[in-house]
Amino acid sequence: MLILVSNDDGFFTDGIKTLADALRKIGEVWVVAPDREQSAAGHSLTLHRPIRVKRTRKDIHEYAVDGTPTDSVNVAINRLMPRKPDIVVSGINRGANLGDDVTYSGTVAAALEATLLGVPAIAISGIALTEAPDEYRYEAAAEFASYLAQKVMKHGLEPGTILNVNVPSETVMGERKSVICRMGKRLYDDVLEERIDPRGRPYYWVGGSAVRSRLDPDTDCEAASEKKISVTPIQLDMTNYGFLPKLSLWDLPKYESSKK
Amino acid sequence: MLILVSNDDGFFTDGIKTLADALRKIGEVWVVAPDREQSAAGHSLTLHRPIRVKRTRKDIHEYAVDGTPTDSVNVAINRLMPRKPDIVVSGINRGANLGDDVTYSGTVAAALEATLLGVPAIAISGIALTEAPDEYRYEAAAEFASYLAQKVMKHGLEPGTILNVNVPSETVMGERKSVICRMGKRLYDDVLEERIDPRGRPYYWVGGSAVRSRLDPDTDCEAASEKKISVTPIQLDMTNYGFLPKLSLWDLPKYESSKK
Repeated sequence: MLILVSNDDGFFTDGIKTLADALRKIGEVWVVAPDREQSAAGHSLTLHRPIRVKRTRKDIHEYAVDGTPTDSVNVAINRLMPRKPDIVVSGINRGANLGDDVTYSGTVAAALEATLLGVPAIAISGIALTEAPDEYRYEAAAEFASYLAQKVMKHGLEPGTILNVNVPSETVMGERKSVICRMGKRLYDDVLEERIDPRGRPYYWVGGSAVRSRLDPDTDCEAASEKKISVTPIQLDMTNYGFLPKLSLWDLPKYESSKK
Repeated sequence: MLILVSNDDGFFTDGIKTLADALRKIGEVWVVAPDREQSAAGHSLTLHRPIRVKRTRKDIHEYAVDGTPTDSVNVAINRLMPRKPDIVVSGINRGANLGDDVTYSGTVAAALEATLLGVPAIAISGIALTEAPDEYRYEAAAEFASYLAQKVMKHGLEPGTILNVNVPSETVMGERKSVICRMGKRLYDDVLEERIDPRGRPYYWVGGSAVRSRLDPDTDCEAASEKKISVTPIQLDMTNYGFLPKLSLWDLPKYESSKK
């Protein structure tokens, strides 16, 4: 089994190292990840400059990419790896990727890029108790990722669909239980902090503390509040199918139908 | 009617200027947009540095933000504008935003950010015939955006849902016809170009020419191939609901139910 591991926090972080170590027990692991933190990079691509790749270890396949998570997966699958990997596992992110935050997440974007390129993928994030850097322990999350990766290999995923996994800090090693969820709703009250610089000019900083979750039933946000592992199938297709019939009642003029 | 206009190509581009001019006929327009091109920025946020805002005109409300499209909408709605706008119109993007490309799009991300903040939004993109910079004329697309914005005001959108609009280059001024679509599928064969630098080291560049559309029925990709305006409802919720029952057949261990 050939496994690509990537993330958005950078190739040097504990999260990705612990994940890669756990996955080495079940397959050949290549780590190809950004050379610096790319949190909240979303599904962004580097278009306006070249992308450089540096092998960072001689003993194992570990590469640092000076681009986004999406670039990293792209370069790994299209150029570096000897063949298409069987699965891509992205993470372990330092911090949750729940509800609408998923649309900003570089961790999730790396997994979406994999499914765009025809490879099944999991995104995995660790929900820390606090924002203190060294507080989260990744072992239990890495173990769960390895377990779930084997399930994905056995059952398969639909094209264009990934699994987004959030593992609370309290999870014990060897935990197998999880909740299958839908994406929840995050409430962004006012995430901008206004400050004044030493020369008296205002600047803004995006803070995170004002963000809360709405605890709707069966959502990843609810599972997180109950300190449970959540597994959410996320797809590239963002069409609101339920809204299509309503939109057709707006009486927007149509083209004369040629073939339909 | 208070209208916020943003984009991902920058506040100085023809696309956003033509759009703002067309919308000034139906309301008060504020332009708040990145100070440089941010294409393929996805739904990314600037977290690690302050964001600066500069008013670029005295006669009209036009502001340049040294951040992403998401940052621009965030700052505009939470700080700059006197009240929440009635609608956000993002664009007019130079180039299509069709199918899976939507997940990379800064134009669409700006509109998604608006709906996250409770404001209905439209993303509008111009499908140029070629990649030549000055080839696309924005007037017909701007007119259509203004028409559709009034429809949105009348009928309303669902929370978390935006309209993604693509207008072909061939569209005539005053065109009202459109096709209601779902998101299509883009095929990314191998978008990476490998080159060698003057010192003999390889680098990679993300190219776009290898990307093709699959012309599935009722998709934005199909509409574009028929040179028709497409209107696609796009939502923040990326849950693959159809996959939930399949996933529950995987027999992942569950938590003992306390309340369910």
